[in-house]
Amino acid sequence: MRAAVLGASGYTGGELLRLIALHPELELVYATSREYAGYPIHYVHPGLRPFYRGVRFEKLELSRALEADVVFSALPPGVGVRIVAELYEHGVQVVDLSPDYRLKDPELYRRLYGFEHPYPDLLERAVYGLPEAFRDRLRGARLIAVPGCNATAVILAALPLVRWELVDGLLVADVKASSSEAGSKPRRADHHPEREGSLRPYSPEGHRHAFEVEQALSMATGREVKVSVVPHAVPAVRGVLASVHAVLRDGAGPQDVARAYAEAYAGEPFVNLVAGGRYPDAKNVVGSNYAEVGYAVELRVGRVTGFAAIDNLVKGAAGQALQAFNVSRGLPEDAGLKVPPLRP
Amino acid sequence: MRAAVLGASGYTGGELLRLIALHPELELVYATSREYAGYPIHYVHPGLRPFYRGVRFEKLELSRALEADVVFSALPPGVGVRIVAELYEHGVQVVDLSPDYRLKDPELYRRLYGFEHPYPDLLERAVYGLPEAFRDRLRGARLIAVPGCNATAVILAALPLVRWELVDGLLVADVKASSSEAGSKPRRADHHPEREGSLRPYSPEGHRHAFEVEQALSMATGREVKVSVVPHAVPAVRGVLASVHAVLRDGAGPQDVARAYAEAYAGEPFVNLVAGGRYPDAKNVVGSNYAEVGYAVELRVGRVTGFAAIDNLVKGAAGQALQAFNVSRGLPEDAGLKVPPLRP
Amino acid sequence: MRAAVLGASGYTGGELLRLIALHPELELVYATSREYAGYPIHYVHPGLRPFYRGVRFEKLELSRALEADVVFSALPPGVGVRIVAELYEHGVQVVDLSPDYRLKDPELYRRLYGFEHPYPDLLERAVYGLPEAFRDRLRGARLIAVPGCNATAVILAALPLVRWELVDGLLVADVKASSSEAGSKPRRADHHPEREGSLRPYSPEGHRHAFEVEQALSMATGREVKVSVVPHAVPAVRGVLASVHAVLRDGAGPQDVARAYAEAYAGEPFVNLVAGGRYPDAKNVVGSNYAEVGYAVELRVGRVTGFAAIDNLVKGAAGQALQAFNVSRGLPEDAGLKVPPLRP
Amino acid sequence: MRAAVLGASGYTGGELLRLIALHPELELVYATSREYAGYPIHYVHPGLRPFYRGVRFEKLELSRALEADVVFSALPPGVGVRIVAELYEHGVQVVDLSPDYRLKDPELYRRLYGFEHPYPDLLERAVYGLPEAFRDRLRGARLIAVPGCNATAVILAALPLVRWELVDGLLVADVKASSSEAGSKPRRADHHPEREGSLRPYSPEGHRHAFEVEQALSMATGREVKVSVVPHAVPAVRGVLASVHAVLRDGAGPQDVARAYAEAYAGEPFVNLVAGGRYPDAKNVVGSNYAEVGYAVELRVGRVTGFAAIDNLVKGAAGQALQAFNVSRGLPEDAGLKVPPLRP
Repeated sequence: MRAAVLGASGYTGGELLRLIALHPELELVYATSREYAGYPIHYVHPGLRPFYRGVRFEKLELSRALEADVVFSALPPGVGVRIVAELYEHGVQVVDLSPDYRLKDPELYRRLYGFEHPYPDLLERAVYGLPEAFRDRLRGARLIAVPGCNATAVILAALPLVRWELVDGLLVADVKASSSEAGSKPRRADHHPEREGSLRPYSPEGHRHAFEVEQALSMATGREVKVSVVPHAVPAVRGVLASVHAVLRDGAGPQDVARAYAEAYAGEPFVNLVAGGRYPDAKNVVGSNYAEVGYAVELRVGRVTGFAAIDNLVKGAAGQALQAFNVSRGLPEDAGLKVPPLRP
Repeated sequence: MRAAVLGASGYTGGELLRLIALHPELELVYATSREYAGYPIHYVHPGLRPFYRGVRFEKLELSRALEADVVFSALPPGVGVRIVAELYEHGVQVVDLSPDYRLKDPELYRRLYGFEHPYPDLLERAVYGLPEAFRDRLRGARLIAVPGCNATAVILAALPLVRWELVDGLLVADVKASSSEAGSKPRRADHHPEREGSLRPYSPEGHRHAFEVEQALSMATGREVKVSVVPHAVPAVRGVLASVHAVLRDGAGPQDVARAYAEAYAGEPFVNLVAGGRYPDAKNVVGSNYAEVGYAVELRVGRVTGFAAIDNLVKGAAGQALQAFNVSRGLPEDAGLKVPPLRP
Repeated sequence: MRAAVLGASGYTGGELLRLIALHPELELVYATSREYAGYPIHYVHPGLRPFYRGVRFEKLELSRALEADVVFSALPPGVGVRIVAELYEHGVQVVDLSPDYRLKDPELYRRLYGFEHPYPDLLERAVYGLPEAFRDRLRGARLIAVPGCNATAVILAALPLVRWELVDGLLVADVKASSSEAGSKPRRADHHPEREGSLRPYSPEGHRHAFEVEQALSMATGREVKVSVVPHAVPAVRGVLASVHAVLRDGAGPQDVARAYAEAYAGEPFVNLVAGGRYPDAKNVVGSNYAEVGYAVELRVGRVTGFAAIDNLVKGAAGQALQAFNVSRGLPEDAGLKVPPLRP
Repeated sequence: MRAAVLGASGYTGGELLRLIALHPELELVYATSREYAGYPIHYVHPGLRPFYRGVRFEKLELSRALEADVVFSALPPGVGVRIVAELYEHGVQVVDLSPDYRLKDPELYRRLYGFEHPYPDLLERAVYGLPEAFRDRLRGARLIAVPGCNATAVILAALPLVRWELVDGLLVADVKASSSEAGSKPRRADHHPEREGSLRPYSPEGHRHAFEVEQALSMATGREVKVSVVPHAVPAVRGVLASVHAVLRDGAGPQDVARAYAEAYAGEPFVNLVAGGRYPDAKNVVGSNYAEVGYAVELRVGRVTGFAAIDNLVKGAAGQALQAFNVSRGLPEDAGLKVPPLRP
């Protein structure tokens, strides 16, 4: 199948190119970059030199994108909302890694992302690309909205607690995020001398990912849930760890928690359940589409925490995009993705 | 005044030596190390070479320690519990950086640290060395128990919320801790290739520091409070950030929170209150005794978070020891400590 | 083909397991570890959990190793010297990642590694596993001695300069090495708080790899050459960069240097020649078997520097082992190795 | 004495402010920033909040600068060349941390820095601010040109070898530089995800610092010397290590080298000579004005290497500026600078 990548010079775009090079059914036919159009791909992604010799970034044009069977869009929020709709209308499958089609409520785009959503009807048709929660809906899906990296980690950590009604009240998702989350554009806060050694919260008064987390957890479990997402910048390059803290429901105990996680993730090809005195570590999944998921219960105070560690650029973006694509096409779910993480 | 440092070859001990070298009233007369007795100090702490030329680590002997006016003990938990008591009985002031005299309830030593406390009566006389909460008790104190690094950060972050009764229910302190917290002894989990890039919880089923946090918050405010401490290893060398999450009490709002923090820390020489859309960052205090404290309120879900960032080896250990010592002796509280952090 | 890995719990061993999982022709039948015999592989290498479910480390026994078609030995220097010989005598192919069979002169083992080599005759039969220099000798090889990581980088950087006689006098190879080179065993110098931020030479009075570098360059070019290897510890986890400085031969110029590198590496599947104002970066090859090679000429002083950047655990160890194995068996040289690096 | 800092919002400027706060004889009366004029100092340098409460960056005006007794200029190359001359003409002492007055040959400014030097006569009067080489000339100096960070490290490493004529031919200075050397302005190459894990040369065809190194070594020793400076970016935030490689002169041996270093640095207050199987480490001097200097001899190939490790922002910039200032004014050379490094 012919694949196109829109916004291919950023970190998520580069990761899509890396994974497409490993995918047995995909061939890259088109890669766009506003900033680097005309440059060879290896100018920006030097490690991809042997995989895309002679291939160059191009400008974004609908006609070129229409030559693909599937288009992966890694454009910034709001930038690709129209071309995604046009491709969809022309019958091209779109896997959108931006937030543009994640939320069902069009009103939220105005509040959170500052634009009026031009295709509110399409929001209903888009499928949230988290196979662990929405595998059935993904089969045959033609418009897939890939979850955000923080959202993916939070949902994987919280899903069993919500589904089995093990918690009361608010879930507080304390997220530890690495620097590649912020993208490839240099800025003061992520300048090496500033970011290295830094431990600090950002957007702690309310993070946009909370809305897709609540929506996804409600749709997946049929229960209403309130989630607060508090991200923190820590000095790693790849990886995100979500620690979702909540008050354990009266009467629930460690065995209930253990059972919930075991059942929720039995048979999941990309979830490694970590238990027995061990806990997830983002380092264990770097470079791979795997998630480490675990939990801890402190009975003295009735607190439960669900943990999930992923590589923000793989299971949190490009890898999940391919996993959801595989499901949508009936391919083996791990096609091109059964690659071990890099450690140490 | 003549100062001794017990356990001077570890990270906390080295930091005591570094700060004593800057203190106008202290002169080092004795530094012990079991492992490095006989070696010059700069063999272990190369940067201290110009400050302690010819000075060597010695073995631990009561008679030598008795020559000091004040003894700073950085021995491991349980190891110094007797010599501290003996020095105290002989009239020597002791500033103990271990947990051995922090808790009032002797029973907790059996449960948390695995030893029967031999001087339960002394526990009552020890003063918890956190000037921001117990400045008055510290004046004239002859036995000071310096708080743990995680505990210091959590208490500073939570104190205003508890004192002004702004929260309901459990406080969850999600702590991000750097590698120097684990001490200078090599072990697999802190081996450079393992720790770099790692984002993971540790002791998430109940951390020992929760007990001293609860005790200190209760003593300082007169209110009962339940705190859960969930530490996480992140790949920084120095610094700890505590994010204390709680449900905002019904009726309380952002102004109440802002006022509580402003009042709690007005005039505090080592607390920098960070507000107005900015938040604490551990990087901003590295190498110094300063704490950055701040807060965030998410009204949508009724969540408040208090933040505190400190250097775990300074405000979380050696610096706080000197600050408490200064208070106990009526010296200027910032004597030897008015040193800016290192940044970047 | 059935593959065994001796010493599989270390970093090099883990990397062999990771790459074998990706190799189309190899199946792991045996993995040994003295320390972790009986434990599942994912206990030590958590990221490999989905690839070796139920597989456990075993003790080292000749009989078990004889069941393999090829044995990759990642044992420490001197530890595997006998079993390697025994396997070879029994007709099993051995790819030895230790230094035990790299040097032709048995005397050097006493001087450099402190043991009398028990099989001096075998040294002559072992083939140095650097395909870029010894591809022809590797075809059909039954005993392959995989070069050291520093040696690989230095040789790749220097080979064109030596072969085309572009330099006069001593080559000084200034090597920047990451922490995983030191192996998985914790020690003070590589403790995270010690190693992070550290920039320091080690073994600067003469590094053992110099001997295999000189031997390999001489054998590959027919010229005598003196090389000094000066390694430095820098705070990265993976990757090594060799900067080989030399005085440019009278009459030689930038074009000669450019031509030498271009000709030396034309058609090499794993060498990316970086030129035109760009230079190699170890970050560009992390996780992959690729090398970035480049050069710089400063005419003002007549200095030339050859650069090579590799991942010390892949092209510097496990990846090169598989590449050499592929050549020895007539498999496609990049079988199992055509995997892009991870970046950022 | 009243001090002004021009260009106070960058890393070097911030470090000047940090050190001035510790200096017993200096009081800050003026700090400029083009970008942050009007903002409080702690907006850019949060750690300095308790030291400069209420102080704001101002625009650069000659009249304001003339109120100072000494002006420290940390402006970019070429930007401050005129105001420095004007201040000097008005009798204000200037300590210039830019390269604008380092070189004696005006022609070099056109070639290396791209501008015609407007005050060639002043170049002769400026004193190169390296007390270890030019202490006598610095006494009473009214215009001090502070050496570059790489140059400082290279000169300290090489000086004994040149002075005692222990080497033949070219000196190759292989420099390992941390990210704060590049300044506070974000750019792609120093973006955290790019720089972390990166090991790469930069400007390897000829670095500008080579000229001031050659000039300084010649002036200090009376001997002609050729030095090639090859810098490398490594992922540390502070610190630079220079490894100066050369061929040992015929007949010279390890004892000659040891004696040269011992004599060269006997009594130097900020040079720690590291010998006896130990070598310099940039980590050992972070945050301080100290340099670690050492050497290694490999007799087998006749190679000698001099090493020097400094904090690029202190001994490589702001600290050295204050040290040279202290000498110029007859103050104790270590006034305000006798502060231990931060370690770990």
